[in-house]
Amino acid sequence: MTYGGIEAGGTKWVCATGSGRGPDDIHESITFPTTHPEETIARAAEFFAGNGNLAAIGVGSFGPIDVRRSSPTWGRITTTPKHGWADTDLVGALRKELDLPFAFDTDVNAAALGEHRWGAAVGLETFCYITVGTGIGGGGMANGKLMHGLLHPEFGHMRIPHDRARDRFDGVCPYHGDCFEGLASGDAVHARWGPPPEQLADESVWQLEADYLALGLLNVICLLSPQRIIVGGGVMREHSLLPLVRRRVADLASGYFDAPELSEAIDGYIVAPALGDRAGVLGALELAQLAFADRAT
Amino acid sequence: MTYGGIEAGGTKWVCATGSGRGPDDIHESITFPTTHPEETIARAAEFFAGNGNLAAIGVGSFGPIDVRRSSPTWGRITTTPKHGWADTDLVGALRKELDLPFAFDTDVNAAALGEHRWGAAVGLETFCYITVGTGIGGGGMANGKLMHGLLHPEFGHMRIPHDRARDRFDGVCPYHGDCFEGLASGDAVHARWGPPPEQLADESVWQLEADYLALGLLNVICLLSPQRIIVGGGVMREHSLLPLVRRRVADLASGYFDAPELSEAIDGYIVAPALGDRAGVLGALELAQLAFADRAT
Repeated sequence: MTYGGIEAGGTKWVCATGSGRGPDDIHESITFPTTHPEETIARAAEFFAGNGNLAAIGVGSFGPIDVRRSSPTWGRITTTPKHGWADTDLVGALRKELDLPFAFDTDVNAAALGEHRWGAAVGLETFCYITVGTGIGGGGMANGKLMHGLLHPEFGHMRIPHDRARDRFDGVCPYHGDCFEGLASGDAVHARWGPPPEQLADESVWQLEADYLALGLLNVICLLSPQRIIVGGGVMREHSLLPLVRRRVADLASGYFDAPELSEAIDGYIVAPALGDRAGVLGALELAQLAFADRAT
Repeated sequence: MTYGGIEAGGTKWVCATGSGRGPDDIHESITFPTTHPEETIARAAEFFAGNGNLAAIGVGSFGPIDVRRSSPTWGRITTTPKHGWADTDLVGALRKELDLPFAFDTDVNAAALGEHRWGAAVGLETFCYITVGTGIGGGGMANGKLMHGLLHPEFGHMRIPHDRARDRFDGVCPYHGDCFEGLASGDAVHARWGPPPEQLADESVWQLEADYLALGLLNVICLLSPQRIIVGGGVMREHSLLPLVRRRVADLASGYFDAPELSEAIDGYIVAPALGDRAGVLGALELAQLAFADRAT
């Protein structure tokens, strides 16, 4: 059986086909930039149409999206500030070209699923996957299932303390200004300091970023008590960042939590994705496989 | 079958026996202040010893506590700042007097379970229960099961923005100062303004409190996307507070979330406990019933 997976990111899309039998079992794949919806969706449809008989396609999308299966707007991107993409019927448009079963979830839930199947979250019941890229997203599993509820988690829009004496930057979120994403996303780092994050060498830049990320992670720990937190995304390519975040989370926890994972064992608690950049598309393939299995039963 | 339930709060304990067949089916109950551990636990043990044959006892306790069934310190209160209670082997001490199966969870998870069985969360898969009393606690269900993970949720210790220009108060948390509980618990209101909260009539007092609570609830929404949030606890007895919190949460959401529950339908989304003050002890009885059923299978 061959499945299709789409990691539909705000910056780029990754489409792949594979058997879902292992993390290296990808048959074909393609990566292209996210332009306007029609063009982007058409490229994905074309890729899958030219790659044989598929059993199902899984889509892990940037959001916010409608993941409520019973909703009339299931499969849509909803209130995204990304230009041109608000109210895009993503699955509907793909379905017009590809008459297949579709699974649909957030990009971060898809990545979490990939890490649960093949990566850093194998065997865990409750864990989070956070991506720090252009924006900040978060998802994961709670009690063995992907996190859904009223809608889906929106880690990026929680509010964290903003020390304006140290950082006068107002934040980049068009909805909330200095929410977590507004202060700590790649777009925020870029807007605050000028050059692209990967060209910034100043230690204070990364200490401030680590301090914000640690506040967000601490809140995740307080609200969800995950067994592990996986942090990926383009901003985390700065190698000094993850160790700074770990140290700061342990400082913030201040001995309150009775768990070595939040002090001396924190290196194994806050980790990089084991699947690296492939977590999202591998998770999307797994979404497809689960959707197909559900239909078959 | 008769079960025992203990709502082991930081201010008072409520012990009850009941059949678990309905929210009004409590046979005997007793309420007494939380003093030092030996005395408090002895009073609970005496109550149950004098109330017939019980199948099991459920305990919903203030925390932090060790709820990991496989842990050698399961059943203990761990790092609580409450004087004299750190490292108290609560279940161990009860078991010495009462040779019965015990279930053990946080007070807020117990209350959530009560509300799920008989109250404001019937039929929901993912919801939260928050108590705003002496301290602030939070728990609930995710994907149909009580929230556990590395440890258990600690809603009170998340960090929220603290506008020091408007509120110079440093917060009361002995671990973190101005965390959510440090700024918005009953102890914080008392320490900031002087008289007990119920004697405070000044509107600005309750607006500030509502603003802090709304920040905490907004973070809960961003991280968990619950289908409903139940807010109880002594501070919520101020009747003006819940409507102020709802309005402020809707403001903070700022149209980002595509759900009427976060705008015009918020009155049904952020609600008081349907079981009122009895949620905790009814949930503790339900914990006992589930533990007994688990043992029997």
